[in-house]
Amino acid sequence: FEWIDARDTIAPEGHPQRSTISHRGRSSVPVANSNTDGKDVPEFEPFGLMPRGPPPLKEFLDIWDVNMLNQPNEINKRNHHTHLYATENLIVRRGQEFQIRITFDRPYKPTQDHFLVEFVIGSYPQVSKGTYIPLRVDEELSGSWRGRVVQTMDNMVTVGITPAPDCIVGRFRMYVAVITPYGIRRTQKDPSRDVYILFNPWSPADTVFLNDEAERDECILNESGIIFYGEASDISVRPWNYGQFEYGVLDACLQVMDRATMPLVNRGDAVKVARMASAMMNSKDDDGVLVGNWTGDYFYGVAPTSWTGSVEILLDYANSNQGVCYAQCWVYAGVFNTFLRCLGIPARVVSNFYSAHDNDGNLRTDIILDENGKVDKERTKDSIWNYHCWNECYMARTDLPQGFGGWQVVDATPQETSDGLYRCGPASVHAIKHGQVCYPFDAPFIFAEVNSDVVFYQRNKNGTLEPVRVNKSHVGRMVLTKDIGKESARDITSQYKFAEDTEEERTVLQKAEEFGCSRIQSTLPPADVEMKASVQDVMVGNDFQLSLEFRNQSDSHRTTNVYISGNVVYYTGVTSSEFILKTQNVTLKPFELVIVDVKSQEYLRKLVDQANLHFIITGRVDESGQIITAMHVVSLHTPKLSIKVSGTARVSEEMLVTVEFTNPFKFNLEDVSVRMEGPGLMLAKKKQYSLIPTNSTLTWTESFKPRRSGQAWLMASLDCQALRQVYGHLEVNIQP
Amino acid sequence: FEWIDARDTIAPEGHPQRSTISHRGRSSVPVANSNTDGKDVPEFEPFGLMPRGPPPLKEFLDIWDVNMLNQPNEINKRNHHTHLYATENLIVRRGQEFQIRITFDRPYKPTQDHFLVEFVIGSYPQVSKGTYIPLRVDEELSGSWRGRVVQTMDNMVTVGITPAPDCIVGRFRMYVAVITPYGIRRTQKDPSRDVYILFNPWSPADTVFLNDEAERDECILNESGIIFYGEASDISVRPWNYGQFEYGVLDACLQVMDRATMPLVNRGDAVKVARMASAMMNSKDDDGVLVGNWTGDYFYGVAPTSWTGSVEILLDYANSNQGVCYAQCWVYAGVFNTFLRCLGIPARVVSNFYSAHDNDGNLRTDIILDENGKVDKERTKDSIWNYHCWNECYMARTDLPQGFGGWQVVDATPQETSDGLYRCGPASVHAIKHGQVCYPFDAPFIFAEVNSDVVFYQRNKNGTLEPVRVNKSHVGRMVLTKDIGKESARDITSQYKFAEDTEEERTVLQKAEEFGCSRIQSTLPPADVEMKASVQDVMVGNDFQLSLEFRNQSDSHRTTNVYISGNVVYYTGVTSSEFILKTQNVTLKPFELVIVDVKSQEYLRKLVDQANLHFIITGRVDESGQIITAMHVVSLHTPKLSIKVSGTARVSEEMLVTVEFTNPFKFNLEDVSVRMEGPGLMLAKKKQYSLIPTNSTLTWTESFKPRRSGQAWLMASLDCQALRQVYGHLEVNIQP
Repeated sequence: FEWIDARDTIAPEGHPQRSTISHRGRSSVPVANSNTDGKDVPEFEPFGLMPRGPPPLKEFLDIWDVNMLNQPNEINKRNHHTHLYATENLIVRRGQEFQIRITFDRPYKPTQDHFLVEFVIGSYPQVSKGTYIPLRVDEELSGSWRGRVVQTMDNMVTVGITPAPDCIVGRFRMYVAVITPYGIRRTQKDPSRDVYILFNPWSPADTVFLNDEAERDECILNESGIIFYGEASDISVRPWNYGQFEYGVLDACLQVMDRATMPLVNRGDAVKVARMASAMMNSKDDDGVLVGNWTGDYFYGVAPTSWTGSVEILLDYANSNQGVCYAQCWVYAGVFNTFLRCLGIPARVVSNFYSAHDNDGNLRTDIILDENGKVDKERTKDSIWNYHCWNECYMARTDLPQGFGGWQVVDATPQETSDGLYRCGPASVHAIKHGQVCYPFDAPFIFAEVNSDVVFYQRNKNGTLEPVRVNKSHVGRMVLTKDIGKESARDITSQYKFAEDTEEERTVLQKAEEFGCSRIQSTLPPADVEMKASVQDVMVGNDFQLSLEFRNQSDSHRTTNVYISGNVVYYTGVTSSEFILKTQNVTLKPFELVIVDVKSQEYLRKLVDQANLHFIITGRVDESGQIITAMHVVSLHTPKLSIKVSGTARVSEEMLVTVEFTNPFKFNLEDVSVRMEGPGLMLAKKKQYSLIPTNSTLTWTESFKPRRSGQAWLMASLDCQALRQVYGHLEVNIQP
Repeated sequence: FEWIDARDTIAPEGHPQRSTISHRGRSSVPVANSNTDGKDVPEFEPFGLMPRGPPPLKEFLDIWDVNMLNQPNEINKRNHHTHLYATENLIVRRGQEFQIRITFDRPYKPTQDHFLVEFVIGSYPQVSKGTYIPLRVDEELSGSWRGRVVQTMDNMVTVGITPAPDCIVGRFRMYVAVITPYGIRRTQKDPSRDVYILFNPWSPADTVFLNDEAERDECILNESGIIFYGEASDISVRPWNYGQFEYGVLDACLQVMDRATMPLVNRGDAVKVARMASAMMNSKDDDGVLVGNWTGDYFYGVAPTSWTGSVEILLDYANSNQGVCYAQCWVYAGVFNTFLRCLGIPARVVSNFYSAHDNDGNLRTDIILDENGKVDKERTKDSIWNYHCWNECYMARTDLPQGFGGWQVVDATPQETSDGLYRCGPASVHAIKHGQVCYPFDAPFIFAEVNSDVVFYQRNKNGTLEPVRVNKSHVGRMVLTKDIGKESARDITSQYKFAEDTEEERTVLQKAEEFGCSRIQSTLPPADVEMKASVQDVMVGNDFQLSLEFRNQSDSHRTTNVYISGNVVYYTGVTSSEFILKTQNVTLKPFELVIVDVKSQEYLRKLVDQANLHFIITGRVDESGQIITAMHVVSLHTPKLSIKVSGTARVSEEMLVTVEFTNPFKFNLEDVSVRMEGPGLMLAKKKQYSLIPTNSTLTWTESFKPRRSGQAWLMASLDCQALRQVYGHLEVNIQP
């Protein structure tokens, strides 16, 4: 210990920060908004005048050592469910006791010795802001943190510390300070004694408390994910490595908050943290993590379909000074999920099938037909995403009336207009289900994503539009998330919506309407003919048949001329090109089936990104003038990647993994990138192949050493311009 | 009329906009977010195939002239309360009929002739988005706009048009289109026929309906404002020229929305418009109107205290590509008020005296005392603004449950943390009064501004803090706005808060606490000594006395040592320097008065910006250990500007105005800028004086010609580094 002649430098005078705001005259001190800033506290803080000569401190306690008990096998990390983090420092969860062991130069005498354990975060630490916590272990304190002596043994004192259940989440510096009549003597700053304090879903006093062990295991501790995509009646899966425990990820997540210059005082509030992150996951407005790209041209970055997990993205963001290229919705959702789980907020990725993207607060997607019942492509501007991924995070909503806690929607994908900014949520799922969209944040937007009507209009000659058909069940067909502890899908649609055509559903829509989610209220023409389109599962490159079923419920003869429009679309529902446009005369018996043959050569060279085809079939019944409509999306299947491992599946022993793929197409694949990774097994590796000829096979073998025991996944992807979304994953059980 | 061989160019294909977002693959058409963009509609829109040869259109109506009836003395502008706008074009309010007169080549025959009146705004016009409104006058339409034939006379048809009461607000292009069996023939694009459609507080169907003629006159039609500042017990006024009807201001306001790239579909929603503008009035995040500066150094722009109105600022913003320098809260509020009134949203500027600026959602301003009861300046970081100005705007809140319509707080001053962004509101004043802070937007923040407690802590040696005194009535002492039709102040505090110490007040604070506005809940030490500080009104440069009144309510003898700290502060409460620090021993009889003399030379050279002094008096009663505290702000008075006019006060006749000021100080004033302006009288003029010596007088005379009749104000300011906030205004009654 050295003597420092500084008085009270724990409260430094205001000085310009990295932020460009000048605070002079407006506030007396800048807002502390970085976890990394931080002037040191003094090692000695004298009380008033010092006696001359060397101070007589010998009679007071001297600190020899502070043991953070931070090894994975020691008491703290196991108790706090933080043993999986690949980080040396102590990581604990708030509202729950952890222990440290202090060794003094002599036995501790409770009646005469007084010491403090101090926690400090960021610059300008203040007790009232919760950024400076001086904790006495020998007296009852009114503060919300608690300290106690657990055990004394010889010169060693084991101290138990319980952070407040609503304290700031981040990396705290820790000091032990002995109080003498002359001043306070502190331990030196030592980053190895820094403590990460996280949200605590295991603590009933924490706002993120989740009272289900299996669900906590899934939504906090599981690093291997499944994200659903495709079409509502034909679901596909992609694996995703959340990797929230990998080395560097926790620091990267804290850095996300720092780059958002989020005030430290707000970092204990799960609602604010989730909202901030929904803005920061995308690079728009705010120097955030991921750059979106839906153009099909990913030359200057990684194709969104090529990523296999979040780790590479977060580390790249932390090490560079810019957004990572490129993302689409599942990439945003995957990385956001990592962020939330890493900080201890229960989180899951959900996929909404047929997701309406509303930009004017009405509950309508408009399709405009001309006088003959044919889609007027130039006037039809709205699109429905085949699927859209967002996140749910679990927390109490103390900012809202009772009853709106639980799962909350947050969405990091930058959409046109979420309150004018690129962020969305948290919005209570319960509030959405009940049409209570008046509570923050952005609930009307999400309500529209699952509840919009598809309205078909007929355009009259004078330019006016007349609604002729409304499809109330197309949008928000199904909401899926990964099942707890399983690879399968869990249908959570009923958490967002009441069953169709129930009294509750009507009440909810009415309620939402009161809050400005207006729907169309028109008397529609009567309808006695129904049409339905369907397609069997199809592999990319195969021919297939589109079936049109007609049901004539009238007693009369009906004929119609149907327009069949087949389009290659992006997964956002936006049309890239029309590859089929047929008309067909149909005579309608009570039941009539029409088969339309689709050849692979018609669509194959036109495919974009996710290989989706969208059929819109419309017509006008000659006798009644009724407009009939049907829509169907075909999400073409892609081949799978095969993954095999060999070697002894044991911690730290070398194993081999082989990824294999055979090009089944009649054309060569060019500029193919293959990736693989696995949480606790290997970091992301990438290989580039300039050519995979027709029918030839690619084989890639890598070695790896498992870092920890238990079940873990290896995940791989293959991606090139002509073929995207080729995935594979394999579960491996690692012995200790 | 020419023939155009274009089919349907009213719906152009998507092309890159000024926005850098690439829409391809993500949405089929960019969001229309500019009022100025706009591809023309075709003059002829054929139906299907055209017959060969010149089309036989002669038998159909030809349009000779369209008269917008847009002169100030014609029917439309008077009826729509838009006659004051210095704009040639027709300006009307939605939900209320206006008329246009069409002259055809022959008399109109209702049974055989069909024509449309079309309104188009922005690019990508769509019926379903309300950006393209084709209106038939000869048939009942289901749409929300209405058209009718008011009168036919010879070849002339007077058409009445009623825009939907929730239609988009902005500048619409207007066409008249004749329907023929071969297609639609339109009038050519003609900017002089563009119609501005505004919000309509006179229409019960509009969300901004305000059912009080006198209040509408004040909050929509009055251009001359008063903004209150100073100290709660000693209010000062500054005049402000809102100038919402001056030439160019309406276009500048529309440009603000365009620069915000606010989607057109949202521009009929008063809540969204107000929220967008609260972000756009400041230049932070979004290329907004005003650059904030609280440093005292305004070399690179205009000192915030120097502005006399909004017109110059808005026109400067519209003509340049950057924020205008500089603003503090009343400048933001003044310009924001212009924006709202100009678009037709009732609005007023309010001043909250002792406004807490909370950045962590708790209801506390902390003052930290050392062991002797003296303020620990290094640890006291929170400040309370002497006053803070924001705006209220009047509207229904259909996005919230019933009961939260009416006045809404919006605040454009960029503060540290309003949901992480520089904007605030609209928040229902009624919700704030009742602690219902769970409804958007930003209600907890405003609740804290009027309801925070001032908490005095004593810091113990070991670093812990103990609350010793709480002042619950200091913050939000008074909320003032200009009275309707008068220059005086109207106290609207009771619209924000229930009376102190009532049952209602307690219930509200409890309610707010449920939503996360937490307050301190500590048992405070008993108190039997009270202290109060007061000062008589003081002119800058005068000596004065600070009176300290002590009341000893115990039966015992009490003594104390009080610390008297006098500080020069910014109006934000931030201390610039301490100019007095005295201690005084006081023996406390039941009533004891202590007078502290303050000499002008002690503070005069240290003054900043608004000449505010802040006294904090604290002490510790020797016998009981009780901490006593008092605070007092002295807002030094400045001399007034004298304004005189001469000449005949009649429209378009030249008049003279003279501004006069005598330097009453013992020092020279240097680099003095003087400004004057008056709505309808003269645009802002400015003059710079390098020196006004002691006791010498400045006289500045300018000529002007009143533009319209009625009562109007001339307003002037004088500003220099050493003396700010010198204002004057004069009412002139202009004869027609």
